[in-house]
Amino acid sequence: MANLDLMKELHIAGQTKIVMLVIDGLGGLPVEPGGPTELEAARTPNLDALAAESICGLSVPISPGVTPGSGPAHLALFGYDPLSYEIGRGVLEACGIGFPLERSDVAARGNFCSADENGLITDRRAGRIPTERGAELCAMLRAIQLPDVETFVEPVKEYRFVLVLRGEDLSGGLTETDPQQLGVPPRQVEALIPEAQPTAELFNQWIAQAQELLADQQPANMVLLRGPDQTPLLPSMAEVYGLRAAAIASYPMYRGVAKLVGMDILETGEIPEEEVETLKTHWAEYDFFFFHIKKTDSAGEDGDFARKASVIEHVDEAVVPAIASLEPDVFIVTGDHSTPALLKSHSWHPVPTLLRSRYCRPDEVKAFGERACMRGGLGVFPATDLMPLAMANALRLTKYGA
Amino acid sequence: MANLDLMKELHIAGQTKIVMLVIDGLGGLPVEPGGPTELEAARTPNLDALAAESICGLSVPISPGVTPGSGPAHLALFGYDPLSYEIGRGVLEACGIGFPLERSDVAARGNFCSADENGLITDRRAGRIPTERGAELCAMLRAIQLPDVETFVEPVKEYRFVLVLRGEDLSGGLTETDPQQLGVPPRQVEALIPEAQPTAELFNQWIAQAQELLADQQPANMVLLRGPDQTPLLPSMAEVYGLRAAAIASYPMYRGVAKLVGMDILETGEIPEEEVETLKTHWAEYDFFFFHIKKTDSAGEDGDFARKASVIEHVDEAVVPAIASLEPDVFIVTGDHSTPALLKSHSWHPVPTLLRSRYCRPDEVKAFGERACMRGGLGVFPATDLMPLAMANALRLTKYGA
Repeated sequence: MANLDLMKELHIAGQTKIVMLVIDGLGGLPVEPGGPTELEAARTPNLDALAAESICGLSVPISPGVTPGSGPAHLALFGYDPLSYEIGRGVLEACGIGFPLERSDVAARGNFCSADENGLITDRRAGRIPTERGAELCAMLRAIQLPDVETFVEPVKEYRFVLVLRGEDLSGGLTETDPQQLGVPPRQVEALIPEAQPTAELFNQWIAQAQELLADQQPANMVLLRGPDQTPLLPSMAEVYGLRAAAIASYPMYRGVAKLVGMDILETGEIPEEEVETLKTHWAEYDFFFFHIKKTDSAGEDGDFARKASVIEHVDEAVVPAIASLEPDVFIVTGDHSTPALLKSHSWHPVPTLLRSRYCRPDEVKAFGERACMRGGLGVFPATDLMPLAMANALRLTKYGA
Repeated sequence: MANLDLMKELHIAGQTKIVMLVIDGLGGLPVEPGGPTELEAARTPNLDALAAESICGLSVPISPGVTPGSGPAHLALFGYDPLSYEIGRGVLEACGIGFPLERSDVAARGNFCSADENGLITDRRAGRIPTERGAELCAMLRAIQLPDVETFVEPVKEYRFVLVLRGEDLSGGLTETDPQQLGVPPRQVEALIPEAQPTAELFNQWIAQAQELLADQQPANMVLLRGPDQTPLLPSMAEVYGLRAAAIASYPMYRGVAKLVGMDILETGEIPEEEVETLKTHWAEYDFFFFHIKKTDSAGEDGDFARKASVIEHVDEAVVPAIASLEPDVFIVTGDHSTPALLKSHSWHPVPTLLRSRYCRPDEVKAFGERACMRGGLGVFPATDLMPLAMANALRLTKYGA
């Protein structure tokens, strides 16, 4: 039986509270062989004290060796197997800009690209046009009309945009038009299932009109569409766990993924201190809080070891004691994946994780770090196990079988 | 999604090189309670230094408690779930003697056996006749003619041989004739699927003729056939991982299994030094090398603790530094299974494993041995995870999802 079904069957009512603090891209690597990781280098007295009272381990976001994107990595933390629940690129991109997707909308990620006089692609990113130029082009494309369907064209960054079709009887199950190579024309959108045929035709009509409108807009004289799909039908956290769940995240992408699993999205500010205030304000209203810190990941992506360590120190000082002072029954600190400054990207490395509760059976780990967590009582474990463990430690699961 | 599908989807091109050194039957047991294992007893300064720069762990070949044969154990190391991809006994035996099986051949393992005047089996191994006698009998059986089908009868060892049928429209999906007990007659080959009916009949004709030819050859006056099947259709390592893969192995069985997953088989010599020369010669041509050491397993099977330890010391001296000097991006040292001298056989015990790369996130293991690896960052892990980890560390996987 899948984890989610088991949780649906076993969850019981409770008054307990769970906080999951997700420090994005938390895991790292030593820059010098034998040296510390970002987390090990950071001065984190509060996290270390917490680790000493916790059961610790290293969580594997997807499967060994597999580096996750942010969408699948967060689904795993919320207990949803990311290999079973795939989120289309268009939906994630729409989440990323905070576009209020409706259930039946079909969203595609768009790229402006360059094509020659024969319609063959010469640059899949249109020379990385500036963000403002992308926004102007999106405004032009809003003129496109389709029969019985509303369209939304929203700029993302540089050459990237989101195209959303809204109407009745739309369907996912579509191919993308990006051939992933130069010197060939874009593909047509094709239906992978019969009921998607009308939607495929609408996308192709839209593309044809876009090409006409963009004809004189070199280098951005054509578009490519990727991952057109509807929002996946995910059971909500209320259904699965019986939890009133809320998300505190300053970046739209993470609010979007939280919304996909039915969390309430709390208005908050840009900095961790503001997120803490939001948590305090809504403390009484929810059983589960997803509390997201973004800037560790950004620093890792920039290859900035020192800045990543310093963001961690700031979280240790400004966030961890504040959350602890609210006395959550279960306090989890983890990351969605690793983002080592050495690699300047997400990576496959397991993520340091701690879980503190009155009932967590602490191990002998006395510090929060990659090497310390290797010796923890949770071992190296799938990230999807974290929510069942949180539920158990919150005394919100009944026993299985008699 | 299965591991292999994920690898097919995520692999990207690269210039990096992976070496997987498989020390056959590497894992062991203490002979005296509290004593060292073979690997712990061996003096291995090079492996220990490598372990200190590596992430270490214990790999589980099939599943906890299950002792593997060489075929499934190697499939697991190459990332193929051995419970999904079964290799028939006949095919493995043909691999073991280096018989050049073609895709449509059907191979069966044969036993010479003894039967009484009523055709009831009295000895399933014909008194373990000498190997030379088995070869003479095989030569006799080559006289058997079947309609439209070529037959090959190849001696293996003592009472064992391989029977291969080659022709058009042959099929696997057949039962075996060994009833696994005495006092009963051999069974007939039966078709498990309708299209295997003609092949079943051919095998039964062959058996009838063999019985006539062997009538006066007591104790080897009858044959039993086991595991008749075709070569399983395994996706190649090129398909799954995008790797140009080569095998360096002195024993036919391991070359055979490597061939099943599409590796090029490099000509090499009998001793590790010759295998090292082969590696050097072909270094530029491949991305992945499977480098096999046999004699650890043989020593374990013989119950010779000291000889097994001494083979390990020889590998430490003659092989490990030579491979390291080629500077592979990913260097793995593992075994296909354990072969403790104490048990004189393959066993279920997890296998000491190390993986070194620039990005492996080393743990605190400073020596290569069973107890040391228990504390490693890989933990106790399925052998099928090793290739995805190798691919990740070789920076040959893109991320999953956006």
